[in-house]
Amino acid sequence: MNFDEIEVIGFDADDTLWVNETYFREAEEEFAKLLSQYETPNKIDQELFKMEMENLPLYGYGVKGFMLSMVEMALVLSNNKVSNETINKILDIGKNMIEKPVELLDGVHEVLETLSKKYKLIVATKGDLLDQERKLERSGLLKYFHHIEVLSEKKEENYTSLLKHLDITPAHFLMIGNSLKSDILPLLNIGAQAIHVPFHTTWVHEQVATSTKHEDQFITASSIKDILEYVKY
Amino acid sequence: MNFDEIEVIGFDADDTLWVNETYFREAEEEFAKLLSQYETPNKIDQELFKMEMENLPLYGYGVKGFMLSMVEMALVLSNNKVSNETINKILDIGKNMIEKPVELLDGVHEVLETLSKKYKLIVATKGDLLDQERKLERSGLLKYFHHIEVLSEKKEENYTSLLKHLDITPAHFLMIGNSLKSDILPLLNIGAQAIHVPFHTTWVHEQVATSTKHEDQFITASSIKDILEYVKY
Repeated sequence: MNFDEIEVIGFDADDTLWVNETYFREAEEEFAKLLSQYETPNKIDQELFKMEMENLPLYGYGVKGFMLSMVEMALVLSNNKVSNETINKILDIGKNMIEKPVELLDGVHEVLETLSKKYKLIVATKGDLLDQERKLERSGLLKYFHHIEVLSEKKEENYTSLLKHLDITPAHFLMIGNSLKSDILPLLNIGAQAIHVPFHTTWVHEQVATSTKHEDQFITASSIKDILEYVKY
Repeated sequence: MNFDEIEVIGFDADDTLWVNETYFREAEEEFAKLLSQYETPNKIDQELFKMEMENLPLYGYGVKGFMLSMVEMALVLSNNKVSNETINKILDIGKNMIEKPVELLDGVHEVLETLSKKYKLIVATKGDLLDQERKLERSGLLKYFHHIEVLSEKKEENYTSLLKHLDITPAHFLMIGNSLKSDILPLLNIGAQAIHVPFHTTWVHEQVATSTKHEDQFITASSIKDILEYVKY
């Protein structure tokens, strides 16, 4: 790995710059508690995930789709017997998620401050447009970034058209993120570079097996601060 | 009005390129019918609008937020007595909206085909990212556009940063859309030009009074086809 040609660094946002997945896990626990009379927490978790996957083509990523899937799941799990009070509580779980303060991961300010002096930094994140804009606004990190892109998906073609649009050659681009599936593998496949910074929790939908083909093509850093060991500044 | 300096033309999407507001009106009617035992259609309409406005800072624009507001409204209007069956039907109303085919307005293909030969065309639309990308994909119109921008709001600052990002001088930019509030007035205020093409239905949230100050600063066309009378090609 040699990052000498890098000119632009892209950062994922959720679970790379700030905590996100943890809030979803907490919400799922609350949801399972609300419906504990109908099923075990484990079964509820599994069924909710299935419903999210079923609804993903319609709703996409983000809290609103998650809320709608929880409401639908409550109706299904209870065989249409769930109380209005429970549905109200489900809506509250979601609204609380949207209003959560942004909790930056350790070292984020320092890393962005340092790298922004030598590189163009951009954010490339998946999810709900308004949610992500709001989180960036609240994060105080906007000043470090030249460009913010909220993508509906993070596949090779999405990155290709983003780089083309921003006039960046893949060989000059380094992506940093917590999801192998969304932030690392598609970048390697289009000739860009990537550093993986795992978060302690990964959504099942984002879990992939890495092939040995890719294993020696990217670096895994144990925290975002460690990036400074690999990238010159 | 003189469009000689125009180099880039921006199009709003919903109710400018294709039918949208009509589907929301139909959904509201269905919703009022489902809850007719609790209130008059008129009162339900008013209350739903109030709830949408209350939730707008949280949910933003688009069908998912509308669905969540309908569910919440049903709980409130029925005093927590609404049946699970009705909530299921509300979810179905929303899912059907998302899956509606894209119905292009008359003349859209012809106008875009013609103008795309002389101008750079872009889409600047508000709403849900995935919804709008899906509609553009289904519309068959993507080939005409150099750039698609989905904005969380359409205020002066949003247009300013969009034009800056795309390296467009406001004086060279013409916006075409159905909403005075979102597609016309902010553009005039930043020194760009605009043509208003009203749609027969306007969401209350988009209704504004035009001041006499602006009245002679933009053209109102009765249909998108009429743009070709004003803009050289």
